[in-house]
Amino acid sequence: MSRTCLTIILAAGEGKRMASAMPKVLHPVAGLSMVGHVIAAAKLAGSNDVAVVVGNQAQRVSQHVLALDKSLKVYEQTERKGTAHAVLAASEAIQQGYDDIIILFGDVPLLKAETLATARQGLANGGDIIVCGFETATPHGYGRMIMDGNSLVAIREHKDASEEERQITFCNSGIMAFRGDRLLDLLTAVKNDNEQGEYYLPDTVQIGVANGLNTMAVEVPENDTLGVNDRVQLARVSELWQARKAEELMRAGVTISAPSTVLFQHDTVVEPDAVLEPNIVFDAGVIVKSGATIRSFSHLEGTIVSQDAVIGPFARLRPGTVIEKSAKVGNFVETKNTVLGEGAKINHLSYIGDAKVGTKANIGAGTVTCNYDGVNKHATTIGAGAFIGTNSSLVAPIEIGRDAMTAAGSVVTKDVPDEALAVERSEQKTIKGLAAKIRKRNQAIKNAKKA
Amino acid sequence: MSRTCLTIILAAGEGKRMASAMPKVLHPVAGLSMVGHVIAAAKLAGSNDVAVVVGNQAQRVSQHVLALDKSLKVYEQTERKGTAHAVLAASEAIQQGYDDIIILFGDVPLLKAETLATARQGLANGGDIIVCGFETATPHGYGRMIMDGNSLVAIREHKDASEEERQITFCNSGIMAFRGDRLLDLLTAVKNDNEQGEYYLPDTVQIGVANGLNTMAVEVPENDTLGVNDRVQLARVSELWQARKAEELMRAGVTISAPSTVLFQHDTVVEPDAVLEPNIVFDAGVIVKSGATIRSFSHLEGTIVSQDAVIGPFARLRPGTVIEKSAKVGNFVETKNTVLGEGAKINHLSYIGDAKVGTKANIGAGTVTCNYDGVNKHATTIGAGAFIGTNSSLVAPIEIGRDAMTAAGSVVTKDVPDEALAVERSEQKTIKGLAAKIRKRNQAIKNAKKA
Amino acid sequence: MSRTCLTIILAAGEGKRMASAMPKVLHPVAGLSMVGHVIAAAKLAGSNDVAVVVGNQAQRVSQHVLALDKSLKVYEQTERKGTAHAVLAASEAIQQGYDDIIILFGDVPLLKAETLATARQGLANGGDIIVCGFETATPHGYGRMIMDGNSLVAIREHKDASEEERQITFCNSGIMAFRGDRLLDLLTAVKNDNEQGEYYLPDTVQIGVANGLNTMAVEVPENDTLGVNDRVQLARVSELWQARKAEELMRAGVTISAPSTVLFQHDTVVEPDAVLEPNIVFDAGVIVKSGATIRSFSHLEGTIVSQDAVIGPFARLRPGTVIEKSAKVGNFVETKNTVLGEGAKINHLSYIGDAKVGTKANIGAGTVTCNYDGVNKHATTIGAGAFIGTNSSLVAPIEIGRDAMTAAGSVVTKDVPDEALAVERSEQKTIKGLAAKIRKRNQAIKNAKKA
Repeated sequence: MSRTCLTIILAAGEGKRMASAMPKVLHPVAGLSMVGHVIAAAKLAGSNDVAVVVGNQAQRVSQHVLALDKSLKVYEQTERKGTAHAVLAASEAIQQGYDDIIILFGDVPLLKAETLATARQGLANGGDIIVCGFETATPHGYGRMIMDGNSLVAIREHKDASEEERQITFCNSGIMAFRGDRLLDLLTAVKNDNEQGEYYLPDTVQIGVANGLNTMAVEVPENDTLGVNDRVQLARVSELWQARKAEELMRAGVTISAPSTVLFQHDTVVEPDAVLEPNIVFDAGVIVKSGATIRSFSHLEGTIVSQDAVIGPFARLRPGTVIEKSAKVGNFVETKNTVLGEGAKINHLSYIGDAKVGTKANIGAGTVTCNYDGVNKHATTIGAGAFIGTNSSLVAPIEIGRDAMTAAGSVVTKDVPDEALAVERSEQKTIKGLAAKIRKRNQAIKNAKKA
Repeated sequence: MSRTCLTIILAAGEGKRMASAMPKVLHPVAGLSMVGHVIAAAKLAGSNDVAVVVGNQAQRVSQHVLALDKSLKVYEQTERKGTAHAVLAASEAIQQGYDDIIILFGDVPLLKAETLATARQGLANGGDIIVCGFETATPHGYGRMIMDGNSLVAIREHKDASEEERQITFCNSGIMAFRGDRLLDLLTAVKNDNEQGEYYLPDTVQIGVANGLNTMAVEVPENDTLGVNDRVQLARVSELWQARKAEELMRAGVTISAPSTVLFQHDTVVEPDAVLEPNIVFDAGVIVKSGATIRSFSHLEGTIVSQDAVIGPFARLRPGTVIEKSAKVGNFVETKNTVLGEGAKINHLSYIGDAKVGTKANIGAGTVTCNYDGVNKHATTIGAGAFIGTNSSLVAPIEIGRDAMTAAGSVVTKDVPDEALAVERSEQKTIKGLAAKIRKRNQAIKNAKKA
Repeated sequence: MSRTCLTIILAAGEGKRMASAMPKVLHPVAGLSMVGHVIAAAKLAGSNDVAVVVGNQAQRVSQHVLALDKSLKVYEQTERKGTAHAVLAASEAIQQGYDDIIILFGDVPLLKAETLATARQGLANGGDIIVCGFETATPHGYGRMIMDGNSLVAIREHKDASEEERQITFCNSGIMAFRGDRLLDLLTAVKNDNEQGEYYLPDTVQIGVANGLNTMAVEVPENDTLGVNDRVQLARVSELWQARKAEELMRAGVTISAPSTVLFQHDTVVEPDAVLEPNIVFDAGVIVKSGATIRSFSHLEGTIVSQDAVIGPFARLRPGTVIEKSAKVGNFVETKNTVLGEGAKINHLSYIGDAKVGTKANIGAGTVTCNYDGVNKHATTIGAGAFIGTNSSLVAPIEIGRDAMTAAGSVVTKDVPDEALAVERSEQKTIKGLAAKIRKRNQAIKNAKKA
């Protein structure tokens, strides 16, 4: 679309019903703040500029959105006087001149770029004001869209609607798009002669109609325009987001046997032909490549899982983990800041951190990289084909050579050359009858305590 | 409310459809028996006394309810002759004289105290008989509430209802409240001239109407009056209970990103501004304080988690665990009967039982408190600021001093003084080429087996 | 039923919308391919023979179904020319002569044997053609069943239906049963004079009516006939399958507190009076016996859990695990190819593989059976009543005797006789003040790095 576009996102509200010290629009859905989702949709819909109007906890919201994207324009609405008043806070941006101006709300995180594109198309087709409406089975309380063919004649608030108008199920979502050079005039024409004494953005419709402007409606799926006012709605919207993400991945060819038990983040990437078993939690920054399998009860964050790798069940991959091709991480294993080489295996009960594990190395159950001395972190290098015995402690910084071995139960403090074996162990002493004696003694202690 | 109140809970039924050796009303919802939920609601609604009528497996049900609250009055209905007959089993209690008498069922665990308070308000307003009804989209099979303005004229059983009456969607929940001095007369007037030859409690309505009593209805949400007759209904009721609990916590300001994946117990306490990640199971007796975070795949029982503490993912906190401020329990860690001091950390793969861990102590991965000798349990004390090396075994009873250290892989059997280091380890021997030889030998064994 | 029966399953379709390299009918629901579910229903309904018509990826589908049951007859439809044409690919089977012939689709995995039995009953009652229809609230797009009393007069495709016919909510599921000696004539009479130029099986109805055959309908629950065309539908069908399985188990007397969080496989066996806590994943081949308890966050595969055993939370039981009566597996424990004797316990953080653990043995936290030398697997035997100290490494092949003990932290490489104690350990050295010195040194290193 060669038309220029400004999107203004209203994010000044209080959100008291969230019962939270955090501003409402900063509450996350799938790990990204609600306002972050709206910004992303605005940018994806081709906005040249995005302005955010802040108010409640202005500084915190401002810092948050600028951290997401420092090119955003942030304006403060110092008083809460209604939505039209809020948009006027961004008048500096409006005055820069855009073909299209879209007005969004920071608490509507399921909004899709396609919806905004539809609204912009309405402007491109000659509309002056485009209102996004939705069909609903439960219109009670919403403003009704009074249509005359394709033209939007008025938005009637529920309390002002006639019995007949209340039968209308096409309702106002609040999302609007304007021909850029019309907006300021419309906004300044809005009056606050209502009970609350506020300036309402939807009033621009009747002003537009009165002035012969071309006012139109586009239909948006009801769920896409859901606003969040409390944590229950936030949870509902999160659930819808997850279902949408799972469906999108499945349609692309990802195998997910129980999608309602897999929780994605906003930035999770899962390639087609990957397999996701039930009960997985993705935290931020995960890429699962085609052909990889993530098994049940796994928790991944900041991790890349390559082709044909198998993770879990019960694996926890922490930031900085790179699982190379055909590598395997089994149960009760934690990795952090670790590259696991092609075909390497950490099958059970291990903590491998700040490490580089060579191809086809095998890490025995109970292995721990002692990467922290209480003050500093140190690195561990394990060579290709190495075999780390069970219950080994690798005291970093340390290097285990190619095809080297460590014996079970060894604390390895010195580097091990290629093909060498390191063992730290005493002689096994076996004392006949001692177990029986100890048991008898322990039982005597117990009996004494009881008595 | 200054009026006196007796609640009678009918818990004598058989519950054959549960397919269980356990009496129906003892089946738990969120860890508390169904009858326990009903007793709790009755008490919360201000009942001065609560009577339970038992019958099927009378002794077991009686013991169960008395264990919940020994002040309960328990009466046995020796024959199953209908609900009015069951209430009469408690006539001794009724005769003691109460302003209000409420009749409940032991298999309706979602009942709320507010509902009972509404019914009692009806009595306070001059009602003689109050029936709790519910609006439903699926009235088929229920008794219809025949109303004349605010007066309840009759309860018409489905099979006896006219086509017109079957259009009524306001139905009888079975829950009733009576002016205390009217109840016995009403009950004794009930006849068993029906096909089953039973004495039905709802028949008191028509008797009341015939005698000029003031019979009224109050409306109760349909879900609150759901009765449980089989395990499928039990599961459904449990799901509704969980959703209600999650909603209540979210409205109070708890962050729960995926509420349908978190399972609470009847006594779980989560303070506002605590954070619950997805996939958590709470067992009995858990308190999560404001500012604490419980991460995914955690299982907690009999535990207090203090402010700013972080638990999990993959943590299992067992009874007697106290997590103090800002302490941290990481993945694949089990605690039991343990106090973890302020800022202390058990980050990975450890079992800490019967222990007291000092402030800011750091427990390395793979640490195990050897608290059990096969007969007795013993205590471990770890001082403030201590650093326990990875894969340490602490053989209790033992005391590790303040700011002390244990070396990785050590079995510590003797106390370690403050600031001392304990090490139990041999020299590392590194034998060049031995790994290659061993591998060759193992391969030869394999080849020999094949041949 | 003494009538003979052939079931023909159509499994030749492409399934492009699955976005998968795997043929559609091979995609699993609860671990069994969709066509596998259909074959199982056909056999359960008493089919003497089952024929599968393959086409797309014929060899792969053929191999798959023959691996499930080598007695199946497989026919290839070399061109895709419609359902009637596909059935004709099995004409060799049809010609062998059966009383009843049922036609099913390989992508309808929720189909029940009872449904097929109902259809066969229709044939036994004198029907020539039986069509399975379903009542639906959303008939749009389906073929409508035009009934005259009990007779099926026609199946009207949605696009050909009159406005009045579109009000019909009884729709064609596609599943049909035929009197065996009528089928070939009917099939050969079907014409392809439609837009797609294909031969459609439902056209046999109008041919049958025209020839005076007895055409009837039986009603099937809508969900049972759901076909799968993409992964979203596959997930939906899987969810329904799981709900059905959970309901079936609960009605049989299994306690499942949160059924939507437990995932079964097609072959999972759970006996009445077993207890399943929330969040369990069953993989293939699990039997849970009456009285056993599976706790939360457990993952089981190829395992038998006996009476009164308790598993989890956080247990992973891998193939070849047999848990005997009253044995216990606790958190962060993995077993594989292991028999855990009556009353034995592995309570925490252990890997026990290729092992036999005697009755009442106690395996300490952190125990690992070193069963793999990098090339070969070896066995471990632990005697009855043995006590394995925490953080022990048992280097297989090895045998720990009856009532023997191993000391905490020991690497045990030689067999331990009955009642003996094995210890592999050095002396504990405790160096005063060394911890303080080390900490100072580490801090200096950190400071140096910073500078």
